[in-house]
Amino acid sequence: MTTPYEFAQANAERFLSEYKDLIRIPSISTDPAFAGDVRKAADWLATMLRGIGLDAELINMPEGRHPLVFAQWNGAGDAAPTVLVYCHYDVQPAVVADGWHTDPFEPTEKEGKLYARGATDSKIHVMAWSKAVESLLQTNPPAVNIKLLFEGEEESGGETVDAFVDQHPDKVAADVVVISDGTIRAPDQPSITYGLRGIITFEVHLDGPQRDLHSGHWGGTVHNPAQVIAEIVAQLHDESGLVTVPGFYDNVNMLEDDEREILAASDAIIAQEWDDVANASAHWGEPDYSLHERIGARPTLEINGISGGYTGDGFKTVLPGHAFAKISCRLVPNQDPERILQIVTDHIQELAPPTVTVDIRNASFGAPAIVLDRESSAVKSASAAYAYAWGKETMFGRAGGSVPITFKMAKVTDNITLMGFTYKGGSAHGPNENVIIDMFHKGIAAAIHFLSHVDQN
Amino acid sequence: MTTPYEFAQANAERFLSEYKDLIRIPSISTDPAFAGDVRKAADWLATMLRGIGLDAELINMPEGRHPLVFAQWNGAGDAAPTVLVYCHYDVQPAVVADGWHTDPFEPTEKEGKLYARGATDSKIHVMAWSKAVESLLQTNPPAVNIKLLFEGEEESGGETVDAFVDQHPDKVAADVVVISDGTIRAPDQPSITYGLRGIITFEVHLDGPQRDLHSGHWGGTVHNPAQVIAEIVAQLHDESGLVTVPGFYDNVNMLEDDEREILAASDAIIAQEWDDVANASAHWGEPDYSLHERIGARPTLEINGISGGYTGDGFKTVLPGHAFAKISCRLVPNQDPERILQIVTDHIQELAPPTVTVDIRNASFGAPAIVLDRESSAVKSASAAYAYAWGKETMFGRAGGSVPITFKMAKVTDNITLMGFTYKGGSAHGPNENVIIDMFHKGIAAAIHFLSHVDQN
Repeated sequence: MTTPYEFAQANAERFLSEYKDLIRIPSISTDPAFAGDVRKAADWLATMLRGIGLDAELINMPEGRHPLVFAQWNGAGDAAPTVLVYCHYDVQPAVVADGWHTDPFEPTEKEGKLYARGATDSKIHVMAWSKAVESLLQTNPPAVNIKLLFEGEEESGGETVDAFVDQHPDKVAADVVVISDGTIRAPDQPSITYGLRGIITFEVHLDGPQRDLHSGHWGGTVHNPAQVIAEIVAQLHDESGLVTVPGFYDNVNMLEDDEREILAASDAIIAQEWDDVANASAHWGEPDYSLHERIGARPTLEINGISGGYTGDGFKTVLPGHAFAKISCRLVPNQDPERILQIVTDHIQELAPPTVTVDIRNASFGAPAIVLDRESSAVKSASAAYAYAWGKETMFGRAGGSVPITFKMAKVTDNITLMGFTYKGGSAHGPNENVIIDMFHKGIAAAIHFLSHVDQN
Repeated sequence: MTTPYEFAQANAERFLSEYKDLIRIPSISTDPAFAGDVRKAADWLATMLRGIGLDAELINMPEGRHPLVFAQWNGAGDAAPTVLVYCHYDVQPAVVADGWHTDPFEPTEKEGKLYARGATDSKIHVMAWSKAVESLLQTNPPAVNIKLLFEGEEESGGETVDAFVDQHPDKVAADVVVISDGTIRAPDQPSITYGLRGIITFEVHLDGPQRDLHSGHWGGTVHNPAQVIAEIVAQLHDESGLVTVPGFYDNVNMLEDDEREILAASDAIIAQEWDDVANASAHWGEPDYSLHERIGARPTLEINGISGGYTGDGFKTVLPGHAFAKISCRLVPNQDPERILQIVTDHIQELAPPTVTVDIRNASFGAPAIVLDRESSAVKSASAAYAYAWGKETMFGRAGGSVPITFKMAKVTDNITLMGFTYKGGSAHGPNENVIIDMFHKGIAAAIHFLSHVDQN
């Protein structure tokens, strides 16, 4: 009897060819001009999923948004557990002028890589799971029911999936959830991100004089808002890099020794990545924590933008009337986003001198932090699936970014895992986005393994 | 016998009409498209000056620049002293779309004011001195020879006048120099600015990571350049507003009691101006000095621009690779611009942490500070002339800006004064530029008085 892995190997060329067909549909969700293409990609996916034996439908809830593709296979029977897999099929814009060496929507193979917009973010995941399901259904159907939820607007707000999850708990009900997006530690090093930071963002606007002044005529008598914003920002960290806002670290968990050990396994890889990507003249941050811990397990306060006065070419001796900073905080578990927003903005108000007026604008809490249960069947099955497909033990890590859908889906079940099949060199959102083709095939094998064994963990 | 004042009064309407004729020529020196109009204004002036009895010529030294109008009257004889009056006839750009209520190049009278581009900056001075000379030559020629030097590119670099002064010391040789530009303390309060601050400017550029990073992926491990620029800027002043750069105040003169008394006479007017123009929520600056002293007699370090990261609408959670500040220092006498530039930029280099690299760019010293001799015949004659024309004692003040031509002309003679005839409400460089028409006529009377009496002071 053919195993699903053998089926996948035998059909590898066709699977790659279908993956390319999906890539050729420019499903750019951020530009309304491409709404038809997003829809076309959704139709293509629904047709393909029906072809391999799933019930598939398009869901388009808020008016003018992009459709979800929702597909089910219930062949394991009513008593069997259900696995829901989330991916997204929409992509960022791309034009050759941005620096592409090839047509971004004509997938091009070169030295074992496939170059195209959407290749790494995130059509590799959509297709790996679809083709894994096909391989299973054609050979050895799994003992779990399957739901595939493919989003068409991850790059542009995600309203539809949010509304769908809230309004149709029955449809998204599942015993196991997989969020399949993103990268592993290195092409040959599978890893599971089990922790994500949360985020809040806001802007601090300062008004000093009623309009821009001549810095000669008035300099020395007016507290320059460009100076004041600097004076405020400079007080938000101490010399060791700790955030100085009173109460900021209340409730932040200390890391247990066993977790520090798990995180330390990636130290060398992360240090190398830092040199490759960040490459500043020195590391920075809380001295008591490793780079991995600073990124994944410690909260931050970051200046995403600062501006005041004349910033164009040449010189204008202006004493500006206004200055601002855009600030975000990355949060860790137990930091309530609403409370952090309140104490940080309150502190900034207190730091502001009486020479300016302060206005906090566009405050928002994107997501709280989340740490997944490393002992859940979802995470254990993902770990085993990676180890099978990559032939190497899976590492565990905490990441610094936020993946809001994870928080959303964690409300469906806490038996949840993240699983990415691509690599950090894939230039997601950038020109010459690409995947290592071998990772697509390994991803299919990992997905087959996951669906075949998750009921046993 | 008709006095020159009576002549001016009798011809007031015609003088105003000629002033309007000059205004109608859009002598915008900053836009090459108007080069022909600048030239036309120069020709118009030379013709007018010949008509009233002066030798006038156009001087256009560096290729592609705008002409100087240079006119002389030597009727007082070889033994008589010579007075050189500097004004400028070029103007800033102006289009109705900037917020003008009338055509900027069609002078419009309304409630005693004349609205037009160039009315206040600075054709009022060009015409007041020309019409004063006409009034004198037609009635009671002065005991001094006269040189008029009207610049056509004050708003766009001033290369021609600089080269002319350097290369033709004979032509600009004078016993008394008047720089006629700018404003008096209030429409009914004549004043002489006898001190001007100097200026240096430079930019501080910081490089951290090699490119903009995702603040989630790397935040906590990289010293954010937008934060570092704030941390550096915040260390450049202490809490009282003093500049913290070591050596910055070396050589800065303490103010003598008699000068503080002179400056204090304007305190109430300046406080009112501050409320009208700056109108921040509180005064700021060195507590031991009055507003007038902080503006005119104390050096500053001003943040003219600060920028880093994403500063557009919305939010981008970037950890920027680069940030910068544009900084200027206003200088007072005895502060050597070159030395100040050195110690300030050295200090900034020392403040910079090892997590970033610092690059000082576009450093320049615009001008050193200057304080004119209040006992010179130029200043005493200007004071008496104002008092005659305005019927009120002249105030003395030090201003915070830089007027580079003053420093240049002070090399011709230190018997020099500044003399402005317009008011601060004139919206120089802005929309709806205007003069109080009565101040034009008072300016003519003051100019007549100056030229009639300067030989006696």
